[in-house]
Amino acid sequence: MAKEKRLAELAELSGGRVAGDGSVIITGVASIDEAGPGDITFVSDRKYVKLLKTTRASAVIVREEGAAAGLNLLVVKNPQTAFSQIVDIFKPAYVPAPGIHPKAEVSALAALGNDVSVQPFAVIEEGARIGDRSVIHSGVYIGKDARIGDDTVLYPGVAVREGCIVGSRVIIHCNAVVGSDGFGYARSGASYIKIPQRGIVRIEDDVEIGACVTIDRAAIGETVIEKGVKIDNLVQIAHNVKIGPDTVMAAQTGIAGSARVGGRVQFGGQSGIAGHIEIGSDTMIGAKAGVISSVPPGSILSGFPAISHGEWLRAQAVFGKLPELKKKIAELEERLKGLEEGSAERDKKNG
Amino acid sequence: MAKEKRLAELAELSGGRVAGDGSVIITGVASIDEAGPGDITFVSDRKYVKLLKTTRASAVIVREEGAAAGLNLLVVKNPQTAFSQIVDIFKPAYVPAPGIHPKAEVSALAALGNDVSVQPFAVIEEGARIGDRSVIHSGVYIGKDARIGDDTVLYPGVAVREGCIVGSRVIIHCNAVVGSDGFGYARSGASYIKIPQRGIVRIEDDVEIGACVTIDRAAIGETVIEKGVKIDNLVQIAHNVKIGPDTVMAAQTGIAGSARVGGRVQFGGQSGIAGHIEIGSDTMIGAKAGVISSVPPGSILSGFPAISHGEWLRAQAVFGKLPELKKKIAELEERLKGLEEGSAERDKKNG
Amino acid sequence: MAKEKRLAELAELSGGRVAGDGSVIITGVASIDEAGPGDITFVSDRKYVKLLKTTRASAVIVREEGAAAGLNLLVVKNPQTAFSQIVDIFKPAYVPAPGIHPKAEVSALAALGNDVSVQPFAVIEEGARIGDRSVIHSGVYIGKDARIGDDTVLYPGVAVREGCIVGSRVIIHCNAVVGSDGFGYARSGASYIKIPQRGIVRIEDDVEIGACVTIDRAAIGETVIEKGVKIDNLVQIAHNVKIGPDTVMAAQTGIAGSARVGGRVQFGGQSGIAGHIEIGSDTMIGAKAGVISSVPPGSILSGFPAISHGEWLRAQAVFGKLPELKKKIAELEERLKGLEEGSAERDKKNG
Repeated sequence: MAKEKRLAELAELSGGRVAGDGSVIITGVASIDEAGPGDITFVSDRKYVKLLKTTRASAVIVREEGAAAGLNLLVVKNPQTAFSQIVDIFKPAYVPAPGIHPKAEVSALAALGNDVSVQPFAVIEEGARIGDRSVIHSGVYIGKDARIGDDTVLYPGVAVREGCIVGSRVIIHCNAVVGSDGFGYARSGASYIKIPQRGIVRIEDDVEIGACVTIDRAAIGETVIEKGVKIDNLVQIAHNVKIGPDTVMAAQTGIAGSARVGGRVQFGGQSGIAGHIEIGSDTMIGAKAGVISSVPPGSILSGFPAISHGEWLRAQAVFGKLPELKKKIAELEERLKGLEEGSAERDKKNG
Repeated sequence: MAKEKRLAELAELSGGRVAGDGSVIITGVASIDEAGPGDITFVSDRKYVKLLKTTRASAVIVREEGAAAGLNLLVVKNPQTAFSQIVDIFKPAYVPAPGIHPKAEVSALAALGNDVSVQPFAVIEEGARIGDRSVIHSGVYIGKDARIGDDTVLYPGVAVREGCIVGSRVIIHCNAVVGSDGFGYARSGASYIKIPQRGIVRIEDDVEIGACVTIDRAAIGETVIEKGVKIDNLVQIAHNVKIGPDTVMAAQTGIAGSARVGGRVQFGGQSGIAGHIEIGSDTMIGAKAGVISSVPPGSILSGFPAISHGEWLRAQAVFGKLPELKKKIAELEERLKGLEEGSAERDKKNG
Repeated sequence: MAKEKRLAELAELSGGRVAGDGSVIITGVASIDEAGPGDITFVSDRKYVKLLKTTRASAVIVREEGAAAGLNLLVVKNPQTAFSQIVDIFKPAYVPAPGIHPKAEVSALAALGNDVSVQPFAVIEEGARIGDRSVIHSGVYIGKDARIGDDTVLYPGVAVREGCIVGSRVIIHCNAVVGSDGFGYARSGASYIKIPQRGIVRIEDDVEIGACVTIDRAAIGETVIEKGVKIDNLVQIAHNVKIGPDTVMAAQTGIAGSARVGGRVQFGGQSGIAGHIEIGSDTMIGAKAGVISSVPPGSILSGFPAISHGEWLRAQAVFGKLPELKKKIAELEERLKGLEEGSAERDKKNG
């Protein structure tokens, strides 16, 4: 059954105030361009303010009353946050009920906290520990002696291999892999001998990991994803990497072995960094960039091999003109030759 | 037991005609360079016509009789299509029998059509609906209220999360993920707060999705893959993206959030497009290209940031000569300096 | 219970000799910078020799006694190999016990060798054959008539589809997919018709395949991964590709359809090669490179389109200076114009 709330009720819930008709009935949430009657929406970015004129929403969450005369408004300090709260009312997250499903396979030697949910066909091996209220979705694999914190959600198909540690309030999306063997070999003639990969992955609290992300266990020691890191889909993190707190990595990024990434670094999509280097905190790495040597904190980089973003932008702007420049150089050469010959002739004449 | 067909029978099945011996026995299919006695093969591309001279196949499907004197031919309008039909005879697809396996977990509140196959350890949550004749392979997860059309195949390990919609005659390959949370956060000081991702993914009819592809659900509203789209392995589609009909995406491509891609667009492998931009229909995007701003229909693009393919090709051809050009510029400068000095001297002398 | 070994015992096991105190008790392994009392570590690379001065390890495995006066040493011919052996003692690999778990689903028409381990929720279809001592982890899918050799390990969530062949001593990491359909379509007006993909994947002995790798089955015939190939995470191998022996592929690399790669080729991360080309043996392909035409054995390539690595490095070094070069060309043009005008005037005066 669809939920209904009056705008005034939503204002109370989100600590805001109504401008317009507080009795209007809200039945759903939508983005400003897709909202229709019954929907509440929000505007926080300036560039969407113009959409206020055409929105069909029954109410809009805004920061300032100014631009939206005639609409029913919910005025709050942070429209995005208020909207998130209201989304939770109208479209609550799907959370399976606590309890161990009879079709799950939980070792008698595993330790589960309170109100844990273990869904069908999940496997929890001996020695594993799961914190309170965590949700182990169907088909998840939790290896021997692995540890999962409180309020963590592992979506269907996630694998956390033996010994790995996952913190609290961590979210790992479908089919991501934590603790696969690092890619390490010793040469033996033309072929390769596997170097044992017996370290672990340690994921700290409040990390989110996208679908089909792969994070390899350390050879020895730990691959570490620190507090608050957000990793998008299909990212690769090699063995013995350390990622600092609140770093954000867009999809399909790759971090090679033993690299150390500082805190609050931002990776654009399909970027990559070489092994054994250090990326200073607060660095920004552009989409598709490839960083091959250590960089100080606060760097802004693009290209491959990565250079400063500004330098890259300016060089890239010239790149398309290369054929023209080449032609110009040939012309200059020709004209210069003409002048040189003229000059030589003159010198002969005058000589 | 291996199948046997006479060439004449295959001609009848595929609506073609025999040139040569219609009584030859065909027992298998193979590519023209790998075919041996008993095999039928085909040639459609001109560049493979020369292989007719050396093929050991017992029969060849061709468009025209001309180039292949002495071989047993099956002459048809479309050799590729006829070959596909004949492949189905000799190497039929593996299709599990209809029925719900006792080791599957199907909610009593899910609705299944006729002749659905649900394999071991598949999970179908409450409110989910599956159309007629669809195949839910082992270990597939279908979330609450998700909908799957008719004649759709979900291979082992696929996850379709809650509320998502998959059309008819859709094929989704192993371990692909439909409906993982979009990558959306609001900043809060140095760290990030998750923005609820409560929209869905809607996949229209006749779409094929590769292995380990990730398609994120919309924050609000829908991520949409329109009719006939073909997506290769390991592609990332972010939240709120729309992909138009019959667009084709090669492996490891990435589409950032809220991008809108037209119909019949072709993406080369490892290409990417930025968020919030619009790619006009019938655009071709080269391998490894990165498109960062909206482009009109029919664009042909390469490079990063992408420019017209022709321009990129010409610039790239000069790229390797950069050191030479740099040297030439230095030489020109030197020679020019010489001339200028000569000229100044002359002016002094003559002055 | 933690293991304890005296250094002298470890020397005996690894065929080395002790320099220093052979009675020191070793309880663990660690990398040289992380080792503490009780740990044994190793140095093989010259650049880590300096860490010998500060290591807190109780013993170090070295090749030569020289640089490490005062430490307890285990002197061996190959420190890496000796360390790997000792890692196996202190941190043995997790290997599930042999036997078929009652919650697995193994067809009565499958054939399993001796001492095979089949974990919960694994599926082995009819006609499949598994060699001796292989480990089929939980949630693995082995399709109809697929074959797995001896001593092979398939980690949780791996799918090996119908008919595919996996050799002996192969390791396939979590959620990798072997035998998904190749990406092949015939055009039909604006839309696409699927070409049946009914070949197989054949993986030879001693191959290792990373997490979330996707290897497509051939349209007809075989996609082949030859002996000893090592493939890192999230790599894409398209249909009908052949990869030669002992080739190594870093993460997120993509190989397009029908490409043929020789033996001992090295792929850097996020590199790619076009379809239908041939990469000669012993070629090295740089990170992010894209090779679009066939190259002879022993090539060293970078960039996209890939050129010789040396040429690419030199060109890339100039790339950032493009704006400067452009400016210089404009200046040269200006100065040349000045000279030409001066010369013309002089010619007029003198003429």
